[in-house]
Amino acid sequence: MVRWEPNARGRLEKAALELYAERGFDATTVAEIAARAGLTERTFFRHFADKREVLFGGTEGLEDLLVRGTLKASDDGLGPVEAIAAALAEFAENVFTKQRHELARHRQAIIAAHPDLRERELIKMASLASALAGALRRRGVGDPAAALAAEAGIAIFKVAFERWVAGPAGASLPQLIRESAAALKSVTGP
Amino acid sequence: MVRWEPNARGRLEKAALELYAERGFDATTVAEIAARAGLTERTFFRHFADKREVLFGGTEGLEDLLVRGTLKASDDGLGPVEAIAAALAEFAENVFTKQRHELARHRQAIIAAHPDLRERELIKMASLASALAGALRRRGVGDPAAALAAEAGIAIFKVAFERWVAGPAGASLPQLIRESAAALKSVTGP
Repeated sequence: MVRWEPNARGRLEKAALELYAERGFDATTVAEIAARAGLTERTFFRHFADKREVLFGGTEGLEDLLVRGTLKASDDGLGPVEAIAAALAEFAENVFTKQRHELARHRQAIIAAHPDLRERELIKMASLASALAGALRRRGVGDPAAALAAEAGIAIFKVAFERWVAGPAGASLPQLIRESAAALKSVTGP
Repeated sequence: MVRWEPNARGRLEKAALELYAERGFDATTVAEIAARAGLTERTFFRHFADKREVLFGGTEGLEDLLVRGTLKASDDGLGPVEAIAAALAEFAENVFTKQRHELARHRQAIIAAHPDLRERELIKMASLASALAGALRRRGVGDPAAALAAEAGIAIFKVAFERWVAGPAGASLPQLIRESAAALKSVTGP
């Protein structure tokens, strides 16, 4: 019988990121993460395939969510890059709240320190760009415009996210995304 | 005594890419590459650390070259993204000539088929973006504008290069870079 553990996933994630920050990612074991979270290893493996997965598991469904948001904003009359930026800002509003800032900062530091995790992050972003470009093509945006809009959207998010993580805890990621989108417009335009 | 082999590096590169395309990257040995090029393994290792290196070794000095080109174009009065696009087009003019199209196509197919090579390519691009952003900051471009212009420049190159590799042999990469830059402007614009 599976015992119900309230918010087990969130507790495991928090415990893992704390331990990765304290002891390093390599030195932390799944047993330690489970113990810190007050849960069993078995519960850990019901939520995550391994300790790497804790860093990337929170983004399941991310592509679908952003594709749907982009299509909706596009149907509302926004241009391709604006539509992606609007979808990203809405996503950030719900997911990267101020309460998540500290966890996001820990996560970013761990990824930056591990080339293989950094590569996985880059692959994730490249896959997201492909999905967004595909969505724009389905709305009749041609090429290379669709591919460029998708890459530009990822660039906007990446730069905004890095600023958010490096900045003070009170900053708003959706606001930084809007600033990034405006900055991109000003550096490309005449 | 080191024997002089005319264009040994180019011959090794050509032989390697042919063999990777014929037999697959994993099944090809350094001995086979050297034999196909009519050279010794020893000569191979004077030019490349391993068989992966053949795919990435041609871009040594790439960052320096593009940073210098960007700074020059920037001093000539171009905006940040235009300056990077101009540097990329000039680089492409010299390096990715029509004669190199077939080799570039082989290389791209091998990289696409190997996740670890794809990751290495992404890391290379991310490192180039950092170098370009740093150069723009030294010319007084603020943040997030500098970071966004650099990411936008990489996006322009990436999309143009993918089109060049997928397209007919006669296409001009500098021309595709200019088209990409114009497309980016139109998708970000009002």
